[in-house]
Amino acid sequence: MQLFYTPDINPTVSQYFLSEEESKHAVRVLRLVNGDAVTLVDGKGGMYHAEIKDAHPKRTILQINAVVTGFNKRNHYLHIAVAPTKNIERTEWFLEKATEIGVDEVSLIICQRSERKEAKVERLNKIITSAVKQSIKAYHPILNEAVTFSQFLKQPFEGQKFMAHCADGEKLALAQSLDKQGRYLILIGPEGDFSPAEIDMALQNGFKAITLGESRLRTETAALEACFEVNFLNRI
Amino acid sequence: MQLFYTPDINPTVSQYFLSEEESKHAVRVLRLVNGDAVTLVDGKGGMYHAEIKDAHPKRTILQINAVVTGFNKRNHYLHIAVAPTKNIERTEWFLEKATEIGVDEVSLIICQRSERKEAKVERLNKIITSAVKQSIKAYHPILNEAVTFSQFLKQPFEGQKFMAHCADGEKLALAQSLDKQGRYLILIGPEGDFSPAEIDMALQNGFKAITLGESRLRTETAALEACFEVNFLNRI
Repeated sequence: MQLFYTPDINPTVSQYFLSEEESKHAVRVLRLVNGDAVTLVDGKGGMYHAEIKDAHPKRTILQINAVVTGFNKRNHYLHIAVAPTKNIERTEWFLEKATEIGVDEVSLIICQRSERKEAKVERLNKIITSAVKQSIKAYHPILNEAVTFSQFLKQPFEGQKFMAHCADGEKLALAQSLDKQGRYLILIGPEGDFSPAEIDMALQNGFKAITLGESRLRTETAALEACFEVNFLNRI
Repeated sequence: MQLFYTPDINPTVSQYFLSEEESKHAVRVLRLVNGDAVTLVDGKGGMYHAEIKDAHPKRTILQINAVVTGFNKRNHYLHIAVAPTKNIERTEWFLEKATEIGVDEVSLIICQRSERKEAKVERLNKIITSAVKQSIKAYHPILNEAVTFSQFLKQPFEGQKFMAHCADGEKLALAQSLDKQGRYLILIGPEGDFSPAEIDMALQNGFKAITLGESRLRTETAALEACFEVNFLNRI
């Protein structure tokens, strides 16, 4: 299935013009011709079944034949706030896998012990978009610009709030604490873990400490484990 | 914690000589000196608490002070047989993450639709060893040389046998089928999925078809999803 990500399309149109970049890809790389079927996703749940009306390398015209809204809509809302890793490839790997498995929103948080103090969201978003197309999702996860831990904690969130940390202390298991088909925000710390002050601040702000198993996981593995557990618990 | 992987050590020794490579790493890179504490794992469950008796760059001598056997022994046996990916980095990511999360044995299977017909096990094993040291495991997962799908199916396995495929047909969920604290073998196919003949052959050989959720997962993501599910189901 040749999937195109076209966030500016809407369900009312009967015709659509591919961007110059997408047109070039369609005609020169995929070698699509008039009459060929293509599928578009708008990132907001809409899947559009279309066909090529005019295969032009700079301005391909598509005829929209059918629209499905709410395609494979997820039954819960998962927001993961994770410290970007020193080796940014690890964060890229996490974003690709989380998109395949299922995630709604990702925030990048710069923590006290973070070795990486910034991250280029534009490039990371491209990784997500590729994964959306490859795994045939009609919803495009949101990726937020990096902010500091304390700035992030100021943002309101309706739903259950969890923090995964490696320090001592009482921790819940998601299997026992997660309310199914709910909204969740999970904090994942940097390579050196959250600082005691950050753990305190989160607990004061209504976050519950959780365990992600007995193994010592890297940041990106922990983030994906959290993603996996939430999706799995909402499946059974 | 400075962890060394020393598969040739055994629990009866009171002294141990690091290899030339490990000695050089200990003295020149880690800059360890006499009296420094180090930890060794033998890959078979043994964790050795030692200290440097003679910090020599080619032949460091360690004094073994304590031994723990069966360190964090797993409560189930998981063998994943997966088709190595065209881009071998993806298989490397899987091996690293599976080692962190928990796996006992990995086999590489060349399937009908595999784009990659061979894989260098020596290099892949180094990835596993690094992950063993980084995630502080005393057990080193076994990695087997690549064989064809039909050759692999001839190998006996005591335990539950599962196959994850994307074709139509009845599929079980591990949540309902897995016997806890058991032995499991799970087959994960190449990018183009298993062929109908391969699926048939597996079902004839006692494998049960399973689903890994509704999402369309890449080979390495599916392999890791299987790994997550088995470990998670044996935790709760």
